[in-house]
Amino acid sequence: MTRDLQKTLPQPVAFVGSGPGDPDLLTVKALRALQTADVVIHDRLVSADILALIGSRTRLRNAGKEGFGPSLGQDAINQVIVDEAKTGACVVRLKSGDPTVFGRLDEELDAITDAGLDYIIMPGLTSTSAAVAALGQSLTKRGRNTAVRLITGHDMQGYADQDWRALARNGEVAAIYMAKKAARFIQGRLLMHGATPSTPVTIVENASRPDQRIVSATLATLPAILAEADITGPALLMYGLAPREAARTTALPQIQEII
Amino acid sequence: MTRDLQKTLPQPVAFVGSGPGDPDLLTVKALRALQTADVVIHDRLVSADILALIGSRTRLRNAGKEGFGPSLGQDAINQVIVDEAKTGACVVRLKSGDPTVFGRLDEELDAITDAGLDYIIMPGLTSTSAAVAALGQSLTKRGRNTAVRLITGHDMQGYADQDWRALARNGEVAAIYMAKKAARFIQGRLLMHGATPSTPVTIVENASRPDQRIVSATLATLPAILAEADITGPALLMYGLAPREAARTTALPQIQEII
Repeated sequence: MTRDLQKTLPQPVAFVGSGPGDPDLLTVKALRALQTADVVIHDRLVSADILALIGSRTRLRNAGKEGFGPSLGQDAINQVIVDEAKTGACVVRLKSGDPTVFGRLDEELDAITDAGLDYIIMPGLTSTSAAVAALGQSLTKRGRNTAVRLITGHDMQGYADQDWRALARNGEVAAIYMAKKAARFIQGRLLMHGATPSTPVTIVENASRPDQRIVSATLATLPAILAEADITGPALLMYGLAPREAARTTALPQIQEII
Repeated sequence: MTRDLQKTLPQPVAFVGSGPGDPDLLTVKALRALQTADVVIHDRLVSADILALIGSRTRLRNAGKEGFGPSLGQDAINQVIVDEAKTGACVVRLKSGDPTVFGRLDEELDAITDAGLDYIIMPGLTSTSAAVAALGQSLTKRGRNTAVRLITGHDMQGYADQDWRALARNGEVAAIYMAKKAARFIQGRLLMHGATPSTPVTIVENASRPDQRIVSATLATLPAILAEADITGPALLMYGLAPREAARTTALPQIQEII
């Protein structure tokens, strides 16, 4: 049977997005992949609540990667994935958020294809989606913006240079990943290009998780408020968006109750 | 009991993202919302496979909206949502993709809060996530781009003006929604600002659905190839991304088999 054949031959590696952290924000497909895998190789940012859904017969391997600062080198992670896949095991490579957004997916796909292996990608919700939903806002809005950017504040070379002049215009919206350390740099660049100091910038820490925190700031107050807020979890800066007034009454506990 | 009280008082309206069309790309939370709602008010673009998951005791109302061209006026849609919620029914407003991306969510939220009602937002996968996964690519990549844009080619005022000069640079990536009619305009603007004619532009029609189609083009050939391909379903232009060679061997049927 083809089923037996599949057991002995390498199977495609499934690159699976875990979403932002709330297990209920996994896709149905991702949940099924987690529950049928032989081995799950996961990043450090994948939430404990999601790891708890993985069956007891599945081996868990922590690749320890967080944003642009891997604690296990990328080459070592690639090798682990390839080695596991070559045994014929059903391998899930589990990445926080969406693997296609700031996830260094290409490097792992290259390793897979160089080894003659196949892969599939199961997209996940990037944390921006959960963050903007928590604010009660839209990423795009008629009359305000017909474009939204997902950008990083920081990359391996240091502060990432972006199109600050365009972002400085009124009504622009961007979700800024890995922005905590770069906040003062980002503020400086945007103000230099004429951004309004009162432009809202909202910090969303641990989007969708039980310890989610929403901290309101403006471009002018951002570094001071960030320092005061003592953000320790993964955080997004939502540039150009303030929490909708009414959104403050719909905290996470209520969401769980309704459904 | 609080449960009985909730039945008579208006409940928060749940704005739910259906994802790009594959029912397995619904979030667990969204699926649960669909299966417990009293009424689901859905857009025309929500796939039939997803509507089929809704229980038989749930009323389905088609708001008929597609992109920026509503067939039921936005005011009328707002009124339907408010009227249903005021009866105390558990109302799901189901939008294709992610409600926060080109979904006119704000207008509906305003109507809800103006009526003194509450709401929650359950984010969904925007079609970009499914499209880029189908190409075997990342939206961001070290050494290539530290920003990705979601933009619209067309809005209520006509062709949407974007930051074409910035997008014309090498290595830029954008997912362009509602781009079919605007393809020649987009091509002209980008070439005018110095974009390389051989920049890849990939058309992904019906992302994640059984009739998904991937059509490769470049900026130079885009209008001709679009015309020839006779795209009739919802389509995204993935600007700056070509399908990864190996991705062509991992068609959708195989994905279903593995898990």
